[in-house]
Amino acid sequence: MFEFDTIAAISTPPGEGAIAIVRISGEEAFAIADRVFHSPSGKSLMEAPSHTIHYGHLKEVDSGQVVEEVMVSIMKGPKTFTREDVVEINCHGGLVTVNRVLQLILRNGARMAEPGEFTKRAFLNGRIDLSQAEAVMDLIRAKTDRAMNVALGQMDGKLSRLITQLRQALIEVLAQVEVNIDYPEYDDVEEMTIPLMLEKSNWVKGEIEKLLQTSSQGKILREGLSTVILGRPNVGKSSLLNSLVQENKAIVTDVAGTTRDIIEEYVNVRGVPLRLVDTAGIRETEDIVERIGVERSRQVLHEADLILFVVNYNQALTDEDLRLFETIQDMNYIVVVNKTDLEQNIDLDQVKTLAKDRRVITTSILNEEGVDALEEAISSMFFEGSIDAGDATYVSNSRHIALLHQALDRITDAINAAEADVPVDMIQIDVTRTWEILGEIIGDTMQESLLNQLFSQFCLGK
Amino acid sequence: MFEFDTIAAISTPPGEGAIAIVRISGEEAFAIADRVFHSPSGKSLMEAPSHTIHYGHLKEVDSGQVVEEVMVSIMKGPKTFTREDVVEINCHGGLVTVNRVLQLILRNGARMAEPGEFTKRAFLNGRIDLSQAEAVMDLIRAKTDRAMNVALGQMDGKLSRLITQLRQALIEVLAQVEVNIDYPEYDDVEEMTIPLMLEKSNWVKGEIEKLLQTSSQGKILREGLSTVILGRPNVGKSSLLNSLVQENKAIVTDVAGTTRDIIEEYVNVRGVPLRLVDTAGIRETEDIVERIGVERSRQVLHEADLILFVVNYNQALTDEDLRLFETIQDMNYIVVVNKTDLEQNIDLDQVKTLAKDRRVITTSILNEEGVDALEEAISSMFFEGSIDAGDATYVSNSRHIALLHQALDRITDAINAAEADVPVDMIQIDVTRTWEILGEIIGDTMQESLLNQLFSQFCLGK
Repeated sequence: MFEFDTIAAISTPPGEGAIAIVRISGEEAFAIADRVFHSPSGKSLMEAPSHTIHYGHLKEVDSGQVVEEVMVSIMKGPKTFTREDVVEINCHGGLVTVNRVLQLILRNGARMAEPGEFTKRAFLNGRIDLSQAEAVMDLIRAKTDRAMNVALGQMDGKLSRLITQLRQALIEVLAQVEVNIDYPEYDDVEEMTIPLMLEKSNWVKGEIEKLLQTSSQGKILREGLSTVILGRPNVGKSSLLNSLVQENKAIVTDVAGTTRDIIEEYVNVRGVPLRLVDTAGIRETEDIVERIGVERSRQVLHEADLILFVVNYNQALTDEDLRLFETIQDMNYIVVVNKTDLEQNIDLDQVKTLAKDRRVITTSILNEEGVDALEEAISSMFFEGSIDAGDATYVSNSRHIALLHQALDRITDAINAAEADVPVDMIQIDVTRTWEILGEIIGDTMQESLLNQLFSQFCLGK
Repeated sequence: MFEFDTIAAISTPPGEGAIAIVRISGEEAFAIADRVFHSPSGKSLMEAPSHTIHYGHLKEVDSGQVVEEVMVSIMKGPKTFTREDVVEINCHGGLVTVNRVLQLILRNGARMAEPGEFTKRAFLNGRIDLSQAEAVMDLIRAKTDRAMNVALGQMDGKLSRLITQLRQALIEVLAQVEVNIDYPEYDDVEEMTIPLMLEKSNWVKGEIEKLLQTSSQGKILREGLSTVILGRPNVGKSSLLNSLVQENKAIVTDVAGTTRDIIEEYVNVRGVPLRLVDTAGIRETEDIVERIGVERSRQVLHEADLILFVVNYNQALTDEDLRLFETIQDMNYIVVVNKTDLEQNIDLDQVKTLAKDRRVITTSILNEEGVDALEEAISSMFFEGSIDAGDATYVSNSRHIALLHQALDRITDAINAAEADVPVDMIQIDVTRTWEILGEIIGDTMQESLLNQLFSQFCLGK
């Protein structure tokens, strides 16, 4: 185990609530807490057994002034989140209260933790690997149950175990190669080596490909489906928005690091998190294109994973509608023909022709008709025939996906080389590189600077 | 102890963080947690000793599907917050994660707790009285250290003990009265009774008056000093605002029950929480009066505890300045003569004459000069000669203040009656009423409907 200083941070979300937690981790955790903690019985925390909870008051060391009434949990390493000694102070969940407790702990010997530093220690102390550490953050940020299941599976080591298996197979390939290099005089060794190498390498390649097949769904579950509601004014965009939000309980989050300028609104549509883009704009002006300017709006459309294009059942398609069809012709969209409660003036066949193979859904949002069909269309568009996240090993993290693509390229090179009778020591390089790249996913082969950057994206107190 | 059903709620603030807590309280708390909790050792929570912490997974009862990885704290009543059996489930602090854990607990037999219901049980089960329960919320909402100290003192029972003493004295008065009523034939009893009654009643009256003297400061500490920055455009209102906010770390809170429309911004000035009114307006238009309309702005000014009236050092007073002086003439204000970095064109003697006995502070906010003096003026204006909150018993809660005023009226009536030789059984009524009113502060004599209303203002999970 590494030797670290003792760190502390507020581990509950900011804001007012019943309870807030200040977490302390490190060799001095018990001693620091003991310095300021006073139980009614006068007992010291140092003497208490691990994994016990103690009621008392925190007091200033010099003045004896009471700072808070608290419950203190003490947990002796290595059976803790960080594998170090951990103290969790449960105090009243106010902005001032919890900050005052944290300040008291910092004044008495702990250092303020960096974002993600507790999880980083869990990783460096070998309790979890990197993909599991990343899953901890994914779990916290999960927007739907399905996303949470993917993160839980990954946190539980599902991805790690598969990656470890693949690397084990590559080690066996490398062992074969070693034999071949060490005994180049035996031709029959090489004859045996190449088929064995090919068999194992092809298996690894196949597994990586299978993983990558889950990646687009995994990424959607993790990051949400960036969705734009498009259409002329007064076709019912904001009604559609409200209907989606109301039925599915929007999850509104402030984007980290910004003030309240950027609000992300997520809607859970049958387990698919839709990240609604510029909903404030739709609510205020009913016209995204006008609001954000033509150039900027084109970019927004291009970045969207899904466009819900709303047209009016009660009107024939206008030139503007046709222009919008033109603009989004290569994008992922669903046509929503709204206002079936009114008389039909639209040519549905024309709409279907323009939409080509995209889904066309008719709705009367006013009468709450058709929204179910729309949700079904959204869900099946991205999860057609997919099994539940609980069963499969999903990759969802962009970093993992990028590394898997690199690994796939290297192992393919190795296979091609083997088939082309390239000398085995040349192939060795590609196989070794594949092994290294896969190692980066679980943090086995990784530079410290990269590691620091990765953990700094975590939230404070984790 | 009362018999209640088992309740559960999320007890940490909403949002994303490292840890969130689902709290369960009631007779079934252990049984419900045990139904879904699985430790690696397979041990049951029911067998574990009180005040211990357990690592494991929560699983669906039917499918066995893993819901979360958790740490579970079990605390056997009566040594708990509610005096009932309490289980606290520490899970990952995401919006979906914590809700899923709560739903699992609710599906397995707990009822969703009302806001404040945990604290209400602590009160009904006799662990704390009503003023202590109210102090719990004050503590959570405290905006400064001083406010927190007042709440801590009250939570610790400081106010309760004083109120109990006063009521004890009134009981003794009533005992004297009883003797007098029971033995009306002995004149000498009445002769002894009246002076004793007067002595004790006057002491009670004096203590209530002392408490009420702390109330304006207490209320400011609890609720913040509603502050308006007033002045013509371009005198430096928004610079002053930014300077106060930057130096004192603004605490921004969304007002409960609203969406993000109303934002309260608190600034901690030497322990005094300033609640800045319409800061958004100042930031956007630099002109509060124009923005909120003349009638509405008059009302805002009237409701303010403090006005910071900014004028320009570089210009002679304008007619508009004079009109503003006129408008606020009967209010609490400090004149801020800003822009001393520029040439003096203002007549400071004129300003001082217009301000009468109010403080006039010259500043150059640009050069960061004078803001200290302004903060000192604000602090001393409200806490002149006041001792620190730690030493005194403060009343800060409007409900308590109103009851103390009522009690003061009744005890004064009793004293006047006694001095006017009114028959003692008449006086008895006023003394009894005083005793009852004081009892409402600590919740000893209180209607259930009022009680419910009071606790419903608490936050969820407390």
